[in-house]
Amino acid sequence: MSDQGLSYSASGVDIDSAQQSLRSVSESIAETYNDQVIGGIGSFGAMFSAQFAHLDNPVLVSSIDGVGTKTKVAQMAGDFSGIGHDIVNHCVNDILCQGAKPLFFLDYFGCSKLESNAFNQIVTGAAEACKNVGCVLIGGETAEMPGVYVDGEIDIVGTIVGIADSQSRLPKPNIKPGDRIIGLPSNGLHTNGYSLARRALFDLAGLSVRDPLPTQPETTIAEALLAPHTCYYPALQDLLTNESGLLGLAHITGGGLTDNIPRILPNDLSAKIVRRAWEPLPIFKAIQELADVSDTEMFRAFNMGIGMVLIVDQDSSNQVIEHLATKGMPAAEIGKIQKGVNEVQIV
Amino acid sequence: MSDQGLSYSASGVDIDSAQQSLRSVSESIAETYNDQVIGGIGSFGAMFSAQFAHLDNPVLVSSIDGVGTKTKVAQMAGDFSGIGHDIVNHCVNDILCQGAKPLFFLDYFGCSKLESNAFNQIVTGAAEACKNVGCVLIGGETAEMPGVYVDGEIDIVGTIVGIADSQSRLPKPNIKPGDRIIGLPSNGLHTNGYSLARRALFDLAGLSVRDPLPTQPETTIAEALLAPHTCYYPALQDLLTNESGLLGLAHITGGGLTDNIPRILPNDLSAKIVRRAWEPLPIFKAIQELADVSDTEMFRAFNMGIGMVLIVDQDSSNQVIEHLATKGMPAAEIGKIQKGVNEVQIV
Repeated sequence: MSDQGLSYSASGVDIDSAQQSLRSVSESIAETYNDQVIGGIGSFGAMFSAQFAHLDNPVLVSSIDGVGTKTKVAQMAGDFSGIGHDIVNHCVNDILCQGAKPLFFLDYFGCSKLESNAFNQIVTGAAEACKNVGCVLIGGETAEMPGVYVDGEIDIVGTIVGIADSQSRLPKPNIKPGDRIIGLPSNGLHTNGYSLARRALFDLAGLSVRDPLPTQPETTIAEALLAPHTCYYPALQDLLTNESGLLGLAHITGGGLTDNIPRILPNDLSAKIVRRAWEPLPIFKAIQELADVSDTEMFRAFNMGIGMVLIVDQDSSNQVIEHLATKGMPAAEIGKIQKGVNEVQIV
Repeated sequence: MSDQGLSYSASGVDIDSAQQSLRSVSESIAETYNDQVIGGIGSFGAMFSAQFAHLDNPVLVSSIDGVGTKTKVAQMAGDFSGIGHDIVNHCVNDILCQGAKPLFFLDYFGCSKLESNAFNQIVTGAAEACKNVGCVLIGGETAEMPGVYVDGEIDIVGTIVGIADSQSRLPKPNIKPGDRIIGLPSNGLHTNGYSLARRALFDLAGLSVRDPLPTQPETTIAEALLAPHTCYYPALQDLLTNESGLLGLAHITGGGLTDNIPRILPNDLSAKIVRRAWEPLPIFKAIQELADVSDTEMFRAFNMGIGMVLIVDQDSSNQVIEHLATKGMPAAEIGKIQKGVNEVQIV
């Protein structure tokens, strides 16, 4: 056999290049390790100790997700520094809704051709975000798929596994009429609604990532769209007790307030949200005005400025808001629970 | 605001359609559930009991992976029925190399536009493959990303979490010169090397998925390329004891025998593989001949007919092979361990 024939690298997949990129981020990854990690990088499966003796009834809580076409905006702006934070924080917030503390995270980086700058920025960012919440970046995979991904585009997928004690997991079974709905601010789209936002801002309004945001001219479109997904774990972790009055958490992702709050409500309860209780972020006003999007669509495609919703016992509401303020997290009552048919009424 | 403006559906993402597709597969998914699952489909995080009282020192073993551009061949053939099995079996085999039993699996389906036939076939297949090994399909995500994925193409990502007892996990620390290397047959490319295979068969040789495989004319190219990844857990699970003589397992994925065997060897040992010990599958002969690929490239891009490698104590080799035969898994000695510099020598 000749060594001049077709090589795997010539067919669009370069194993050596992928291994080299992995070496460049291995230090950031290793910094997330703790004493529950067994073995190092490079095993077929990543190992994490399952000794949870401090919990009466430990439950593993897991979630898999992506960041949508936020990667496409990052590509347009040449800035992938926030995307790793996005995917980790999104996943951390998801399992937080069950009352879980993050344990470990795995990432998948899919692309047409591995571009080391994007890869390094994303994996380094993911490692930083993991470290911020005591989560181990325990595994990952890189896939070059020419012909499946559009040239220059990437997709990033993350899986998180966390732990909760069954006795204190969320949502609580006793959510009832009169409970208060507290909203925590988002800092932008987080990781949902990018296809609609890109259509409105770039295709319809003809703006570029470098243009000022029409509704907030001191900010560029890129800055507004690429703000990394807020992580709510540091502010909320002390409320994950049976005594805090916290009854439920809803992460406001795809489907917005409209679809996400009902996920944690019993079938005979609804949520009434008062929209004047907070000011929507300028980016949402810009999208709605430029593309003439209906209110209904806006509230289903975007978080509209509320990234996490808490349902709390009426008597605990002020105390929870004060506690969050001490953690640097502004919070406000934005509605309440009432009898209904498992829907959200925005008034 | 008008209701005639831009909608999320018009921008290429249809939330209702995605929810409808999910409902169509929810029955298959529910069939994988066991009594360790807590709660149902639709939570922000999936919950699985972490009570492992039967193990002295339980260790969670996890892995994330894709199936490469096998999805592109499935698209060409209009047959996604094996892709769900591919991703699950790939992940099961990966954590099996640490001695782990699968617990739960999460899938991610990325595409330009959700095509319900492909989605249903893949998720139903993943559920079947999970059920076959007692694994719960506990979570998943579907992402429509127009402009990131090429129209009509999809990527599928899976994460598995399994459990091993630290005392019997693999590889064992006592792999030594003279240990035998046993190979288990693959049934095709499994999930690696598809970019090179497509280049050779379709671009260079001008064949189509409906053409007969030149080296095995009773089989079509599609059949040869789409055979679902073999799952080795049922055949190997009884050998995951400290008494079986099994010292290590290497799943032969990207990088082939060349790169995967060294992952489980100490730095001062190498593997000597005798290539006449098995007959490469016809699909590999066809790719090599049609595209004039070097032996070195072939053994690094493909499994070459060996999907899983066992390292066993010399005295246990025959017994292990006989045990595997009773499980319907043909196995043969294909080499042995010797002193060296952590490499594979193919002679």
